Order: sequence, then structure tokens, then C-alpha cells
Amino acid sequence: MTATGNRGTARVAQPGEGIGLDELALATRNHGLPLEALRYDVTPPGLHYVLTHFDIPAADPASWELRIDGAVDRPLTLGLDELMRRPAVTSRVLLECAGNGRARLEPRPVSQPWLLEAVGTAEWTGTPLAPLLREAGVHPASVDVVFTGADHGVERGVEQDYARGLPLAEALRPDALLVWAMNGQPLPPQHGAPLRLVLPGWYGMAQVKWLTRIDVLTEPFTGYQNATAYRLKVHADDQGEPVTRIRPRALLAPPGWPDFMTRERFVRAGAAPLSGRAWSGRAAITRVEVSTDGGRTWDDAVLAPADPAHPFSWRAWTYDWTAAAGVHELIVRATDEQGTQPVEQEWNRQGMANNLVQRVAVTVLT
Amino acid sequence: MTATGNRGTARVAQPGEGIGLDELALATRNHGLPLEALRYDVTPPGLHYVLTHFDIPAADPASWELRIDGAVDRPLTLGLDELMRRPAVTSRVLLECAGNGRARLEPRPVSQPWLLEAVGTAEWTGTPLAPLLREAGVHPASVDVVFTGADHGVERGVEQDYARGLPLAEALRPDALLVWAMNGQPLPPQHGAPLRLVLPGWYGMAQVKWLTRIDVLTEPFTGYQNATAYRLKVHADDQGEPVTRIRPRALLAPPGWPDFMTRERFVRAGAAPLSGRAWSGRAAITRVEVSTDGGRTWDDAVLAPADPAHPFSWRAWTYDWTAAAGVHELIVRATDEQGTQPVEQEWNRQGMANNLVQRVAVTVLT
Repeated sequence: MTATGNRGTARVAQPGEGIGLDELALATRNHGLPLEALRYDVTPPGLHYVLTHFDIPAADPASWELRIDGAVDRPLTLGLDELMRRPAVTSRVLLECAGNGRARLEPRPVSQPWLLEAVGTAEWTGTPLAPLLREAGVHPASVDVVFTGADHGVERGVEQDYARGLPLAEALRPDALLVWAMNGQPLPPQHGAPLRLVLPGWYGMAQVKWLTRIDVLTEPFTGYQNATAYRLKVHADDQGEPVTRIRPRALLAPPGWPDFMTRERFVRAGAAPLSGRAWSGRAAITRVEVSTDGGRTWDDAVLAPADPAHPFSWRAWTYDWTAAAGVHELIVRATDEQGTQPVEQEWNRQGMANNLVQRVAVTVLT
Repeated sequence: MTATGNRGTARVAQPGEGIGLDELALATRNHGLPLEALRYDVTPPGLHYVLTHFDIPAADPASWELRIDGAVDRPLTLGLDELMRRPAVTSRVLLECAGNGRARLEPRPVSQPWLLEAVGTAEWTGTPLAPLLREAGVHPASVDVVFTGADHGVERGVEQDYARGLPLAEALRPDALLVWAMNGQPLPPQHGAPLRLVLPGWYGMAQVKWLTRIDVLTEPFTGYQNATAYRLKVHADDQGEPVTRIRPRALLAPPGWPDFMTRERFVRAGAAPLSGRAWSGRAAITRVEVSTDGGRTWDDAVLAPADPAHPFSWRAWTYDWTAAAGVHELIVRATDEQGTQPVEQEWNRQGMANNLVQRVAVTVLT
């Protein structure tokens, strides 16, 4: 820990306050999925969202090692080659940043200013984590497993390597993978090369990149990213609930063509098919609805069949809109087995897990 | 042309005005090079900057065709397969957006709000354009060649397919390529799949993506992107000079580690090696200088040898800094055979070709 003062103190923007240069620096470093790329079942290279808290580390795969340690009988140190000789699994998994939608909140929490595009779906290849933990011999009294990356920096005054703890049961899920490839290619630097965790269903903060250590704890992990950063709080002094699984969301690939600056959409009157994707990390999607009149009326979209081979991917949906001349506001909302996306915001001061519906202004031309 | 009103009117931000949600929507769609990625000679997939004026088109390589037409004797229509059977060349070329540095101008032109990261270097594979133009038989009185993409939208009230004209002599340069691969992989959608133009040395607006037409003209091209958008103007009613080749710039890979929110840097006192890249599209780089005291004194960096095989790539530079405790402002500036990067801004109202020096705040810890 290094004393670095009160730089980057958590705060909420003033009414009408625009995005500052510090937020802009994050928005230009990180990047989202341009929403027309919802057309792809698997997001092509370079279009998947990226969030890096600090810098992308310069990791050398040849000398890189993973250490599994803590409350285990047999600590392990593994090179990348050793991991890649283990049984490999490829899994199609959607990832979404817990901060997605933050910049749409009012008042706006000051941080990485995502609108709606912090999402993507990839084919991740790696080896299951659970057999490695069993080899190491996890002690019976263990409760949390901490994943630490090589990325180093300061956040809210705390110098740290990025580290996130998970409940032991999540780390032992058979679908938790240590991943070295994305869409059939070596993991790109910005996605965690040479090795990252992929835990289907959880927001991005759990998907630790540039993974160097896995430590088993017999006490709950109290590091910065668990205890302070990724919490749902209304007041600054709330303890808050931890952010965990992805809430349901549907997104529309905006139809027609855009105005460069305002991103307002234009379509011709007549048949105007709408399409997009819907997902949830907590329960199966059961319904997507579309409103073409700003939320006064809703109609069911057609959901693509559920694909049991990819339970943590996204589902395509379509809707046959007949567009009449004039200005319209399109909205979509997803429902999973636990509930529906909100039409009014559910505010929290860190702008986490905001799954407020998308609204798209469209001018229909005759 | 469709009447779409005065949406997205060109304007300059008020003093103290933050980035608006429309500019943020552009900043989250498009993306830059995280500056630590200056470490790579060739920018890895997904880290190269991307700017799309409108949407990324859904082009089908199987049915896609390029039409070469206008003031030619023998108009040509070519499928992708036919182009890929022609002689192929791979060329390492740096591209930079003409709007790079826009958001650092005061007052700030309102548009895609780049700070300094709209740059990247790739290995582009394609076939030279000039032999195709010769096959088509360009008429002797021709002056311009217009490149049109499949991307469609509205900009400052003008509905258009993105189209840029070039002087005939530039189109006939032996190093102008019609490109179908990037870093040895098929061109990604956001970089112009299935075919784009790469014209070494020019800013990004000339590198037309999703290329569908090449038209030879006997009069200068007066389309929106040439006559209105990419001009150096001080007043709204200036005709302005056209934006053409990339001005010199040096960038520093920010040393040490960052504060998440402010991006301020921290390093330990002592040896603190600095490194980065320098480039120019108009003349050879001759010098890079570093200031570690906010511009009061300057010292020469060590430039990597010029590489005749890659004249339009970037050059690495290094500088051995001995960092003393305290707060420092680092600046680098590049010089090419025609001049030096400015330390004070040279303002223009569209924020084009701003190669003002980078400034990096660093706190040196004991």
C-alpha cells in the first residue's frame, strides 16, 4: 500500500455536469460493443467490450506461472504449457461489465462512463478449475477463493494488484474455466493473456485477467474490489450488497441508419424488422417485449429457441415492426425466471448492475 | 439526400462544458489504442483504433463486388475472389485518425472526442490499386478518384454513403493497396471487411472501408467528406485547407502504474526508463525530445534505427530517466524533415490534425 492521497475519490456528478476529461480518458481506453455487432452470434475480435482497471500488463507466456496456494494441502505452481496439456473445454459465454449502463443513471456516478455497450459473447477455451483445486487439496474449513491478476495500480487511494474473491462453491463449479484462447485464437493482451478466469453468469469483475495467483481462504476475502468497489450502495456509508450475477437485459440493434453525431436513427416507412439479443446470468430468459411508442404499449418479440449447448450465451430475438412516418421511441425489455428489466431506474451510487431498459429514438421517413 | 434537419450541427463547446451524452456515445462505440500498447511493433487485434462514421455494415464476402467506373475506358466489376488471385503485398502501415487530439483543444470542437489514442500500426495485405486503374484505362483529363464505402448515414444533415476523393497521383502510388487482411487474418468487420483502401501516410479519413466503388472524375470531387468535413478552418465560413497527410507526433507509453480514475501515474524514484513511438506521414522522423520538467528543458531520446522496409510504420524511442521524488510533467515531441510538433495548440474549429504534444503527470514516490 502506498499513500496516494484522495485522488479519484468516489463521487456522484452534479445535475447537468458533463463527462469530465478523466472519465473521457477511461471511455477512450476501454471500449464497448457497437450495437450493430449484436448481429453476430459470437462477437468478432476487437468488438467485444474491454475494461481494464489499470494498464494491460506485458506478460511473457514463456516465463509466466500460476500459483495455487493458501488453505490447501499441496500448493501448485503451473506454467502455461502444463495447463494447456490438461483437458480443454470450449464454452460460449456472454460477459458484461457490472458498470454497464452507469452513464444513463441520474444523478450519474463518476467512473467508467458506459452507456449500454459493455457486453460481448466469445468462445472461450481453457481447462476446468475445480480439478486443479481438488489436486491442491482444499481444506475443509475454506470459504473463499481469491484470484489475483498481474495488473497493478491505485484505486480510491489503495495500491493493489487487481484481486477478487469468490465463494468456494462458485470456484468449484464445473463450468469455471482457466482460459488461454478466445474465438480459437490465443487470448489477446486486453482480454487477459496468457490466462484468465471465466465464470459463466457473473458480471465481468469476477472474470479475473492476467491471472497469477489463486489463494484459498478460511475467512471471507476483504480486499478492495470485494469489500469496497463492487457493492450495491445508496449512501456512501452503506456496507451494501455484493455485485454477483448478471441481471436480465435485452438490447436492440438500432435499425436503419444513424446521424453521425447524435446517433438518432432514420428508417423508411413500412416493414422495419427489429432484432437484438437478450440474456441473464441468474436464470433462463423467458420473454422479450418491444414497445414502439415509448412504453405505452408492449408486444411480444419472437425469441430464438433456447440452446442447451450454450446456457450462458445470449438469445436472438426478432420483431416485425410496421413503421409509420413520424418520431418513435423504441424500447425492449427482457424477463427471466426471476423478474423483468426495470423501465424506471433503480439507482445506486457506484452505478453497478444497472439494467434499466434501452430507449432508441427513430425518425420514420415517408 | 434526405431532409434530416439541423441535427448534429457543427459547434464548439462552451468554456467549461463537459463531454455530452452524444459525444460519449461516439467515445464508447469507437475506440483508441491504450497507450501501454505502444510496446508492440504491430498492434495486436482489438487494440488498433477504430472510427466508424455510421454503422459497421453487414457485408457478405461471397456476394460482395467492387465497381471501378467513371472516366475510364473499360469499367470493371470484381468479386473478392478475383482480387485475391491478383499479386498480393503485405505492408506495415501506421494509421491515425485526423481527429486525434481533438478533445485536448480549447475551446473543444464537438465531435468524436479523441484524446491521444486514435492510432495503430498493422500489417495490411492486399493488391496494389494502380494496376487495376491502368487496366480500366483512366482518361487523360482525370483529376480525382472517389472511393465509396457501404457505410450509410447522415452527417450534418447530408444523407450519404461515406465517400472520399483523392488526387489521381495519390491513387496511382505503387503503395496504395486494396486490402483484405490485417495482421495475417481476414479483415475484421470494424476495419472494413471485406475490402478497404490503405494509402500510407494519409490520415484515416482517406483509408475508405467497406469499399464498393471507385470512380474516376475529370472534375475535383465536391462530396461532403472532402468539401465540408475534413478541412482546416478557423471560422465556420472559411473554405479551409484539405486535411491530407499525418503530421509528426511522438507518444509516451505512460510509465509506472496508474490511478484508475485520474490516470495519473506513479513511479519509484531512481532509474525509470521511458519509451514510446514517433511517426509522421509527410516526411522522415529525425528527432524525438523528452522534457521531464513540463517543457523548461529538453533532452534527446534515442531513436531506433530507421527501417527502410517499413517507411510508413512508427519508430520506437527510449530515454533513460532518473526520477527524483516529487511531481513531474513529462512531455515528448517529434521532429520530421519538415518541422517539429507544437508545444502550444494550433486551433481549428473541426479539431483536425491536432498534433499538440502529450503531457503526462507523474508522481515519483520515494
